Amino acid sequence: MKRKNNELEPCQIIIFGGTGDLTHRKLMPALYNLQAQGLLPDNAPIISIGRRDKNNEIYRDEIYHSINKYSRNEVEDSVWSSLSSRIFYQRFDFREDEGYSRFKNFLCQNQREYQTGGNRIFYLAVAPEYFGIIVDKLKEFNIVNQGGSGWNRVVIEKPFGHDLDSARKLNDKITAVFNEENTYRIDHYLGKEMLQNIMTIRFANTIFEPVWNNRYIDNIQIVSSESAGVGRRGGYYEQAGALKDMVQNHMLQLLTLTAMEPPATLDTESIRDEKVKVLKALLEMDTADIRKFAVRGQYGPGKIKGRRVPGYRDEERTDPDSKTETFVALKVYINNIRWSGVPFYIKTGKRLQKKSTEVIIEFKDMLHPIYLKNFNSINPNLLVIRIQPREGVYFRFNTKKPGTRQTIIPVNMDFCQNCQIGQNSPEAYERLLQDVILGDQTLFTRWDEVEYSWSFIDKIAEAWQDNNPDFPNYHAGSQGPIAAEKMLQQEGHHWWNV
Amino acid sequence: MKRKNNELEPCQIIIFGGTGDLTHRKLMPALYNLQAQGLLPDNAPIISIGRRDKNNEIYRDEIYHSINKYSRNEVEDSVWSSLSSRIFYQRFDFREDEGYSRFKNFLCQNQREYQTGGNRIFYLAVAPEYFGIIVDKLKEFNIVNQGGSGWNRVVIEKPFGHDLDSARKLNDKITAVFNEENTYRIDHYLGKEMLQNIMTIRFANTIFEPVWNNRYIDNIQIVSSESAGVGRRGGYYEQAGALKDMVQNHMLQLLTLTAMEPPATLDTESIRDEKVKVLKALLEMDTADIRKFAVRGQYGPGKIKGRRVPGYRDEERTDPDSKTETFVALKVYINNIRWSGVPFYIKTGKRLQKKSTEVIIEFKDMLHPIYLKNFNSINPNLLVIRIQPREGVYFRFNTKKPGTRQTIIPVNMDFCQNCQIGQNSPEAYERLLQDVILGDQTLFTRWDEVEYSWSFIDKIAEAWQDNNPDFPNYHAGSQGPIAAEKMLQQEGHHWWNV
Repeated sequence: MKRKNNELEPCQIIIFGGTGDLTHRKLMPALYNLQAQGLLPDNAPIISIGRRDKNNEIYRDEIYHSINKYSRNEVEDSVWSSLSSRIFYQRFDFREDEGYSRFKNFLCQNQREYQTGGNRIFYLAVAPEYFGIIVDKLKEFNIVNQGGSGWNRVVIEKPFGHDLDSARKLNDKITAVFNEENTYRIDHYLGKEMLQNIMTIRFANTIFEPVWNNRYIDNIQIVSSESAGVGRRGGYYEQAGALKDMVQNHMLQLLTLTAMEPPATLDTESIRDEKVKVLKALLEMDTADIRKFAVRGQYGPGKIKGRRVPGYRDEERTDPDSKTETFVALKVYINNIRWSGVPFYIKTGKRLQKKSTEVIIEFKDMLHPIYLKNFNSINPNLLVIRIQPREGVYFRFNTKKPGTRQTIIPVNMDFCQNCQIGQNSPEAYERLLQDVILGDQTLFTRWDEVEYSWSFIDKIAEAWQDNNPDFPNYHAGSQGPIAAEKMLQQEGHHWWNV
Repeated sequence: MKRKNNELEPCQIIIFGGTGDLTHRKLMPALYNLQAQGLLPDNAPIISIGRRDKNNEIYRDEIYHSINKYSRNEVEDSVWSSLSSRIFYQRFDFREDEGYSRFKNFLCQNQREYQTGGNRIFYLAVAPEYFGIIVDKLKEFNIVNQGGSGWNRVVIEKPFGHDLDSARKLNDKITAVFNEENTYRIDHYLGKEMLQNIMTIRFANTIFEPVWNNRYIDNIQIVSSESAGVGRRGGYYEQAGALKDMVQNHMLQLLTLTAMEPPATLDTESIRDEKVKVLKALLEMDTADIRKFAVRGQYGPGKIKGRRVPGYRDEERTDPDSKTETFVALKVYINNIRWSGVPFYIKTGKRLQKKSTEVIIEFKDMLHPIYLKNFNSINPNLLVIRIQPREGVYFRFNTKKPGTRQTIIPVNMDFCQNCQIGQNSPEAYERLLQDVILGDQTLFTRWDEVEYSWSFIDKIAEAWQDNNPDFPNYHAGSQGPIAAEKMLQQEGHHWWNV
């Protein structure tokens, strides 16, 4: 049985990687906003671990500046003072034994002070190669106190392995210390408002569910475009590429939420069960499929909003002959009764023309033939769930053009939930951190989700290793490689840009 | 076989009632706008008949001022001069024989001059009691030249009879002179953009048809509210009342377009056949039904937008003890496979709070029970087709409230086709006049439509005659009688106001 109390219990929030980018840009601003909304327990000390030499005051000062810079709200003194007084910096090298004893002592003393009753969250905001090491040491030094008083939860950032095999090894290591119910695998897309909204839109509206299947839907496009390049993440990205950095996790999560059957209830495991069923039903791509329906790309130099930007191979810490893909487009099928025959097109890439993440439902051409006889083509109905940066729902349908006898034109309706000034949705990390504290795993990836998605992705990654791509094959600021356009053209489709 | 050439052939447009309100406010502005858009034949003299003594110049001058006042566009000199030169005023009393011979001579001479080849449109913009008289005289004096060269069409304004019996008599008279294919029974609602759009919205969009039935729709509300009172039409209105003035024609037309099955083709008779099928399937209301599900009302004095207005019985040319209803609300059923069990609520009235005509589709509560378990009530999906004054489509659906875990809120999307400045749809009469010239009867009421609708309405009118209403029973500026609210409450419904 899962333990899920949904109460704000006191706990220690321990961040490995306390001086890193993620902590500064995302975690601390999220904790600040939770504090501002009264969504943190009063007794929740935040303990950051780093190798650099600094004391609490210097660290708090740095965090203050980061929150000011990255938070969606301005920093209020009263909120900051109640938060900052319980931020602690612990200096040690988490790869070495020597710091852990001292750290353990600090935690025990701090636990008594804040009455956290042994509840601990270990947030691993570090490079993936350290996940295993840290977990081992936490066990070795009895810092994780399974079965003792209080709960211990571990939060793992992506990537969770770099293929099925490495993911399994990592998982074995983690679950030997924490078990599945205490393991929180972050896919920060799941914390985004509109991802959570997909289920509500589908299952709390009478009008959508009856047409949410292969009788009425022609194809579904799941697109996440970035205009940014690889930035300072070249070192990591060289090993990952778009397939493992984006498709294995975020894009497949979007796919499962869009395609899943209605869960029996809204509890965590019912929802995850349905998501896994979608991944299990993903039609495995063989080598021939991959050649035809998996397009990879890498950006060359180009222009974004009038500004010249370098190609991927000229970015910091990338290989000048890099074969790493910064773009992926796939056609995949879900082999079940609901979706048989409906292509799901997945597209993601860096340095594309615009930044947007969307799920686009293209409905079939008219069922009723009376209008088709008179018109060469009627535009299909489109339902677009906009994930970011704009959040909302867009619907395109056909009407009679005013003043004409029978001319049919497409018009659209738009609902935007973050367009008005002052309407900013919570950041994904706010929701996710809150859920870790509450013990709600719904928005975290269960092990079998990871397992099935790697098994699907591995096939593509392996096929791609066998032959050399002709990179770069798209300009920064373009729509991506021509091959991705052609892939849809040959199916009689095209990528929507609405 | 219907003759339908859809060409702008030369013709004489003859208006009986040339000095009346309809001609000044609607017909002439419509003809002007058609002229401005090049939608009138070049050889289309307009011949107005009136009893008052005036010559062409005076008449044209009066028409010029009316167009300036009532047209949706400003009058352009060049358009006006080409139109006005072929407007002619003919003075005679159409009730008396003496004028007809002279009139016939004028028509013949004018026909030679404009080379109209015998094509004639007779527009009867007169009080209904004169329809029969005029048609008789046109026949007697051989002004209608059936079987001769050219076509002769008659346009009849509402009301077409005041019950089934009188409508039959009138129809016999008209079709003895003109036959059905040359009889154009005006229901000017059919000329409105959004009424024509209902079929397009329903049948040219994949997403709507699958849910357009009793499995998904809970109830349909067809509402036409006016904030205006009876104005100067008291004399006519005393004989008619809302049931005959609005429900028998406009409201039932909205009902048939909303409820009809898809026609086999888009031709006139296929569409009319489907509309008649709906009227035939209307479940006849017996006396008990009428007592419970037919509410009538008459407005007393009140306030509209802060201005005091008199009650109906104090209006010009109304009876101080009048029993005429200015408000009707009905619950009706369409007894076929698609609509069995779905109530259609009809509401229309004068001096209500706001002016608007809408078809509101209320969908059933969630099919999927997972959300119902957690929430007492979820707002139903609403699809609203806005007819006037705003023209468009409104859709209300449920989403997750941003920043919450599972709070569901309704949000809406709105498409407005006449909201932007400069986007004014053609007036109903433009389209209808154009269709008479083109010989397209689609937007006119076929005899059997009239027949079935009177037969349905007569039952209610007869039942109402048998007992005295307690009038007035609603204040001007209100939502109508309390009984109309209660009628829906007892069904677990309420009138939507979106």
